[in-house]
Amino acid sequence: MNEVPGSVGTSAGFSLRLAQALFSSASLLFMSLGVEFYSYTAFCYLVTIMGLVIPWSFTLALVDGYSVLVKCPVRQPGILLIIAAGDWVLSVLTLAAACSTASVVDLLLHSGGPYCPPKCCSRYQLSAAMAFLTWFLSLASALLNLWVLPSL
Amino acid sequence: MNEVPGSVGTSAGFSLRLAQALFSSASLLFMSLGVEFYSYTAFCYLVTIMGLVIPWSFTLALVDGYSVLVKCPVRQPGILLIIAAGDWVLSVLTLAAACSTASVVDLLLHSGGPYCPPKCCSRYQLSAAMAFLTWFLSLASALLNLWVLPSL
Repeated sequence: MNEVPGSVGTSAGFSLRLAQALFSSASLLFMSLGVEFYSYTAFCYLVTIMGLVIPWSFTLALVDGYSVLVKCPVRQPGILLIIAAGDWVLSVLTLAAACSTASVVDLLLHSGGPYCPPKCCSRYQLSAAMAFLTWFLSLASALLNLWVLPSL
Repeated sequence: MNEVPGSVGTSAGFSLRLAQALFSSASLLFMSLGVEFYSYTAFCYLVTIMGLVIPWSFTLALVDGYSVLVKCPVRQPGILLIIAAGDWVLSVLTLAAACSTASVVDLLLHSGGPYCPPKCCSRYQLSAAMAFLTWFLSLASALLNLWVLPSL
């Protein structure tokens, strides 16, 4: 079979996973470092989801890196199915977290007042933007893995 | 080819579309009737998206009903591809709108005060719940149509 760039076990897939891990870590850091995120449900949800996405992406980046190095891509339909399903679920959850965070930040910005010091709010915005980027990359991974699945 | 229940031109597909149109109309009505939704970005976004979903679901319900009546299901790959792509885009947008609305309602409920009279807030909550149901049904349509596509 021909390889689809971006699926499990290719170098493009490795870069996709690495970028996902990077952006989700950035989102988590912007949200949690020195900011009182635990007073808003949406922000706690974002932190929880990013705590799931980071180990998932990092593990799969390791798998991809290993199979690129030994030149032996993963070809078991069962494993690919699990990876594709996990990607789908995580991308839906990431989208939900990113949208919730973005809408709460927007509300805080417009209501003004003591709820949102300018420095904190720009951090929240950056965190939401990183979460959207993570969603986009995770969706790309999920689509590419789903594309590979029927050809096995 | 065998028919997949729930795809375009089947009676299950017709009921799916009808339920989508029903729930999205309910979401729009709960949000917009007698409630000042235009002061929150997330609520305006929900109203916009529901204004897109309602005509889309209603048109496809008509198409499904017609093809069930004349017993001639739609089998052109081009048309099915457009319908599946539209379903995917609308289901992502609906999920985003539902999450934004739910998180803003949650924030308003917890902040209390004059922003959220109890009667309005329960309406907003119902609207968000209906939007989540619309998303779920729209995702089901999109998956079933995508499933049919390769067999044509």
